[in-house]
Amino acid sequence: MNALDRMNPADARDMIRRGEWTKPTSGLANGYTQGNLVVLPKELAFEFLLFCQRNPKPCPVLYVTEPGSAVPALVAPDADLRVDIPKYRVYRRGELIEEKTDITDLWDDGMVGFLLGCSFTFEHALMNNGIPVRHIDRGCNVPMFKTNIECVKAGRFEGPMVVSMRPLPEKDVVRAVQVTSRFPSVHGAPVHIGNPESIGIYDLYQPDFGDPVQIHEGEVPVFWACGVTPQAVAMHVKPEIMITHAPGHMFITDVRDEKFGVL
Amino acid sequence: MNALDRMNPADARDMIRRGEWTKPTSGLANGYTQGNLVVLPKELAFEFLLFCQRNPKPCPVLYVTEPGSAVPALVAPDADLRVDIPKYRVYRRGELIEEKTDITDLWDDGMVGFLLGCSFTFEHALMNNGIPVRHIDRGCNVPMFKTNIECVKAGRFEGPMVVSMRPLPEKDVVRAVQVTSRFPSVHGAPVHIGNPESIGIYDLYQPDFGDPVQIHEGEVPVFWACGVTPQAVAMHVKPEIMITHAPGHMFITDVRDEKFGVL
Repeated sequence: MNALDRMNPADARDMIRRGEWTKPTSGLANGYTQGNLVVLPKELAFEFLLFCQRNPKPCPVLYVTEPGSAVPALVAPDADLRVDIPKYRVYRRGELIEEKTDITDLWDDGMVGFLLGCSFTFEHALMNNGIPVRHIDRGCNVPMFKTNIECVKAGRFEGPMVVSMRPLPEKDVVRAVQVTSRFPSVHGAPVHIGNPESIGIYDLYQPDFGDPVQIHEGEVPVFWACGVTPQAVAMHVKPEIMITHAPGHMFITDVRDEKFGVL
Repeated sequence: MNALDRMNPADARDMIRRGEWTKPTSGLANGYTQGNLVVLPKELAFEFLLFCQRNPKPCPVLYVTEPGSAVPALVAPDADLRVDIPKYRVYRRGELIEEKTDITDLWDDGMVGFLLGCSFTFEHALMNNGIPVRHIDRGCNVPMFKTNIECVKAGRFEGPMVVSMRPLPEKDVVRAVQVTSRFPSVHGAPVHIGNPESIGIYDLYQPDFGDPVQIHEGEVPVFWACGVTPQAVAMHVKPEIMITHAPGHMFITDVRDEKFGVL
């Protein structure tokens, strides 16, 4: 996997664009920030951007395109959001109607693309600090839960925050707060530590999305705001059309993870 | 001044609302975050919010109202942006036409209010760390300069970044970077240290806005992105109507400065 690890982002996107990579992007071009995609009609763009501004932990905005433009100029100027993601999901009125590898035929002058920060960045930072990440060690998806924490409403967008959970050894909890606090634009510090019930989670082995992971003796469950939140909230509005990446099939930017560290 | 210093934000706004305080707000309700106001018609709101998102250092967004609402619900739920600022400026097609203490008659369902972070927060943090702030010691306005740093364009909004300058003793420069980095939502870390010419500033004693301050032997000029930038950029678009606070006459939120520290 070394060649893929070390691939530069432009080459990785090129491979994806040519249809030679249709799998999840984890492990591609390591060290470069990957992002969640949400595409909405421009009529909803202000409300959705306002929702993100009011809820920066679940919805950290990396970039928003001009209406009609598919170029994320500030984070990957030679990229095209219509073809540079391995797999897309197309929703109509809140229902998933198809998955495809190219959305050029669906993109028109009314489309606005939102790239939102993803947990890969802070997971790299945790691992660089010697803090283990259970679902990566196990090769499964991170467990995610709906909570009783209501997002701040903006226009028609509202709903509960979704969180991801990583069990950490007690001795690593403080360092994990410090490390992830450096990255407010990719979910930042945890939203809760220690008592799942107080945020409305009653069974850690029954996640609402993703896979369950084992919590060992001497470990504390730590919860971060999750990038599934904005998609869930947008879907709740049932827009005429909404396009997202398929889970794990992210957009790879030209920006190094460390660029998003505030200190 | 102790009573004003220690006033709580609601009482300070109440005094302003009753017309009993029409002066600058510096020194009122110390420790609570003050913000710049920009009011624009909703047709421009998405583009302006996009501009702020792309230029977070000069345009750090604290809160944006729903179109038509004058309540900054997340930062001061019982406030009214139409009467709680000591002095407003009204611009029509880019020209200042009047200053007033109440804009209720101008506010309609199409208005969106933007509250943007202000340097007061990071200046308190500097002073709490024993770092002197020259213009405060001198009781004058901070010197501000247009630079050759172009903001990232968004729709019709574009223009050069405006910066403020504080001369710091050499020994305090590193600590000033650390201290202000904690506050990305109130301009954050400096944008330049040391060589004014390389950002297009040729005479430190001729600021474009504010007052000049003395730079002593052994001091380094340090430049932060400035909240004048978004007003200058918005004015450049010459919107039918734009309302701002008058310089120094800020909006006082209920949020303590420290709440905006990311770590």
